[in-house]
Amino acid sequence: MSIDFRTEPSRYRHWRLEFEGEVAFLKMDVDAGGGLSSGYELKLNSYDLAVDIELNDAIQRLRFEHPEVRCVVLTSGKDNVFCAGANIRMLGKSTHGHKVNFCKFTNETRLAMEDASANSGQIYMAAVNGACAGGGYELALATDHIMLIDDRRSNVSLPETALLGVLPGTGGLTRVVDKRKVRRDHADFFCTIEEGIKGKRAVAWRLVDEIAPNSKLEGKIAERTKEFAAASKRNGNGKGIALAPLNRTIDENSVRYGFVSVDIDRAVRMATISIKAPDAAAPADIDGMIAQGASFWPLQVARELDDAILHLRINELEIALLVFKSHGDGANVLSYDAFLDANKAHWLVNEIRQYFKRVLKRIDVTSRTLVTLVEPGSCFVGTLAELVFAADRSYMLIGSRQGDNRPPPSLQLSAMNFGPYPMSHGLTRLQSRFQADPSDVERAEATMGTALDAEEAEELGLITFALDDIDWDDEIRVFFEERASFSPDSLTGMEANLRFVGPETMESKIFARLTAWQNWIFQRPNAVGEDGALRRYGSGQKPKYDMTRV
Amino acid sequence: MSIDFRTEPSRYRHWRLEFEGEVAFLKMDVDAGGGLSSGYELKLNSYDLAVDIELNDAIQRLRFEHPEVRCVVLTSGKDNVFCAGANIRMLGKSTHGHKVNFCKFTNETRLAMEDASANSGQIYMAAVNGACAGGGYELALATDHIMLIDDRRSNVSLPETALLGVLPGTGGLTRVVDKRKVRRDHADFFCTIEEGIKGKRAVAWRLVDEIAPNSKLEGKIAERTKEFAAASKRNGNGKGIALAPLNRTIDENSVRYGFVSVDIDRAVRMATISIKAPDAAAPADIDGMIAQGASFWPLQVARELDDAILHLRINELEIALLVFKSHGDGANVLSYDAFLDANKAHWLVNEIRQYFKRVLKRIDVTSRTLVTLVEPGSCFVGTLAELVFAADRSYMLIGSRQGDNRPPPSLQLSAMNFGPYPMSHGLTRLQSRFQADPSDVERAEATMGTALDAEEAEELGLITFALDDIDWDDEIRVFFEERASFSPDSLTGMEANLRFVGPETMESKIFARLTAWQNWIFQRPNAVGEDGALRRYGSGQKPKYDMTRV
Repeated sequence: MSIDFRTEPSRYRHWRLEFEGEVAFLKMDVDAGGGLSSGYELKLNSYDLAVDIELNDAIQRLRFEHPEVRCVVLTSGKDNVFCAGANIRMLGKSTHGHKVNFCKFTNETRLAMEDASANSGQIYMAAVNGACAGGGYELALATDHIMLIDDRRSNVSLPETALLGVLPGTGGLTRVVDKRKVRRDHADFFCTIEEGIKGKRAVAWRLVDEIAPNSKLEGKIAERTKEFAAASKRNGNGKGIALAPLNRTIDENSVRYGFVSVDIDRAVRMATISIKAPDAAAPADIDGMIAQGASFWPLQVARELDDAILHLRINELEIALLVFKSHGDGANVLSYDAFLDANKAHWLVNEIRQYFKRVLKRIDVTSRTLVTLVEPGSCFVGTLAELVFAADRSYMLIGSRQGDNRPPPSLQLSAMNFGPYPMSHGLTRLQSRFQADPSDVERAEATMGTALDAEEAEELGLITFALDDIDWDDEIRVFFEERASFSPDSLTGMEANLRFVGPETMESKIFARLTAWQNWIFQRPNAVGEDGALRRYGSGQKPKYDMTRV
Repeated sequence: MSIDFRTEPSRYRHWRLEFEGEVAFLKMDVDAGGGLSSGYELKLNSYDLAVDIELNDAIQRLRFEHPEVRCVVLTSGKDNVFCAGANIRMLGKSTHGHKVNFCKFTNETRLAMEDASANSGQIYMAAVNGACAGGGYELALATDHIMLIDDRRSNVSLPETALLGVLPGTGGLTRVVDKRKVRRDHADFFCTIEEGIKGKRAVAWRLVDEIAPNSKLEGKIAERTKEFAAASKRNGNGKGIALAPLNRTIDENSVRYGFVSVDIDRAVRMATISIKAPDAAAPADIDGMIAQGASFWPLQVARELDDAILHLRINELEIALLVFKSHGDGANVLSYDAFLDANKAHWLVNEIRQYFKRVLKRIDVTSRTLVTLVEPGSCFVGTLAELVFAADRSYMLIGSRQGDNRPPPSLQLSAMNFGPYPMSHGLTRLQSRFQADPSDVERAEATMGTALDAEEAEELGLITFALDDIDWDDEIRVFFEERASFSPDSLTGMEANLRFVGPETMESKIFARLTAWQNWIFQRPNAVGEDGALRRYGSGQKPKYDMTRV
């Protein structure tokens, strides 16, 4: 059964969205029977991917549909429990691949909350009104402010090491020391106890920002939300854009949306993702954009591409290569880029730019080989050229193909290639590409407005290989076949290392240092073996560990 | 059989050290039958831990015993082959724990070469006089300059992904993109081909610095070494310090050196590492230090501690906790610290400081829980206080113990805590500790010269817990027992995440991003399963892969 990432508030089973003027309340109230699979119950606000798909949708809609919201309160709709974290039985039953992809998505969702705080002025706070364990605390950690109820039962904890023999899977360790800057020895203590920390010590150790007795909780929340809303830089106005349901048709080997289509070749273990340029130039002004709504080209493409990547990641585990192609009139893409650049101060334009940035980041951390083919009829210009720079390799045709009377392909840069779409480690893809000589970024920038042919693009270092018609088919076929024959594990590790050149940020550390170690642990018998902690959890039997340190 | 890390040039079987004035030649000429275990032959200058133990020793002796050396040429003593990398059969036969520890040590050895270049003015260059594959190229990558012979047979390659289904295990991927700044798509191509890259393309892609025809190789080497020696900042003079053999006695549960001793409690899976203060104050001047030679306290302690850590890592895999203790007169430790601070411009003092830095770094990346106990009679001051800050947790006694008439323990800082011993990510341990408020580093600095009792140390944030005599035994016993009961994998991952707060460097990326992914891959059936690539290598059978991407 294919997992669908599309949803909308009327279909939520696990979250309630409530509004009080500038403040939104995002209430977790998990339906224990509403998990993705049978075989486990989502008790105590524990979650599986189904719960996170709704959370991801809610965060997104708050940004696009609610320009008035300046503060979001994440809280629980249940008594005495905030959230018990990822469901352990679900983890125990899941394949390694599902666990890894589940954690990747939940990490992206947490990062989306932080992105909304930082770049859209929707400041998140957690009102922790009960026990808050593991992934529950990681959810709170992704907000800007954690308020913990001060009673005997309520605490925050990361009991994974003590109870489950794994790590917190959603950035917890990194956020504890790198975001909240909890002292490392305090963190060591905190991360090795089951019972968690509450009250004044939780504040003193920076695990939460403040505590409030139950009787004063509502008042304190009101006070803080007022403060955060006042401090917010959100400049939303008007009614917002309704994110209409995405039109999608799926059959065995294809997925079709309006501008994006996916074609799967199972023999080569390859999915071709094709993006169509807009049919016309960008609207003349903001009113024109608002009239187009969710069908405004960059927004629709971002949503379709996002859904396609998520679908392939979780439902098509044997696909080794994602091949990006494009077609249509590049001038129209550039017209939209110019619109996004000229109107960047508008709140909705900002949201669309930030969203495209997140979709491109999602591609960067996708563990499949990424290839971009720049062929006649393609339109890898501006925003779409980022797919050339996100790729592990790109190929561009020199001249035309025999029997094809379309002009040779060209590549063209726009302002969108020089800032708005940084990678998770803080550099643009071109900065990351040109670490050896930053002046190469300036050389590239100087070509803005010029259509570059394959040899020019190769000389500027913008593509990997320029090939002529004689070599094209063979070279690319051999590359695809060879790549698909390699160990997927080795490729995953290799690509994760080569893609992120240079500095690291908290975000990139989560995907590198933390996730890599977690994947290792998720593979170890001490966690997933028959006597391992994940399998034995809740059985009354203690796990048996091989005590060898490595 | 216990693996011994102690060696000396007269016992080398795999390397030759030759000297021509300011230039040393470090020639790899592996004795195929001289591996650590039987069952594999070290053909084509492939290596196992035995080879690397000698290399580590040679790099160290060059710094201490050869003040005149300003340039080191790493080359091969064999025809047509530089180095084929780590021996695959050895990897195929090794346990996961051995593989991981082997890679950790080889990584530290490569970093020691870079440290010698950067901080001792011994500039390394590789003269690649033949095929240079995998770990062979990684060895070259650790030098500052790679010269490749320009002939049909000689190339550089990282064939791990294509041939073995694993990653280069000694920093190769990171150094290719982060040190040599090879463009990421070029790196992707290079790291997925078996046959490697040679000649002009190797230069154009920044994989090597220059090429030289065989006939001109010697001349080119002479030219470069002259240039590097002239540019070197090495200020060595005199005869150097002979690194006399370390005295060590081992029995089943202890290791004893002159100032360092290790006592193993197998029931608790704990090793106590105890360090003794010098018996007297530091010598009055440089001549006094030189007269003491290898028994100069900081040098002897660094060597003993280094050996003890390496021994425990590779020979005592079931030990979960390393507990640091110290005893003796702290005033003498501070006297040596003052000497190291006052004479830091002297080449040998510099070497000793740099070495202590490396030993502490080795402790930081040791995957055992690190605990420091500050008890009556201890001398955790200055340099030794770094062991308090390197620990995952520290405990300090308030007051004295009943029936013990020694004074309460104290902690005291010196200049050595504020710069000379940075961690691999570039911060001092105190900077790393006080990320939340950098002014806490200044507060600590203001106490220099003052002996701090447990409550003062706790208030300053220098220790984790101050306990009185009533709680001490129970609290510590419970902590030890609990810690030793946790999944060692989970602890390894947790500690690797909590210890390195804040920025990352190339060095820390090697241990975090790269090593973590490699450990994951080393655990996967596609690499180490019966049909996996490491097992099937050389058998004539192709590996069978599970093609699921995760």
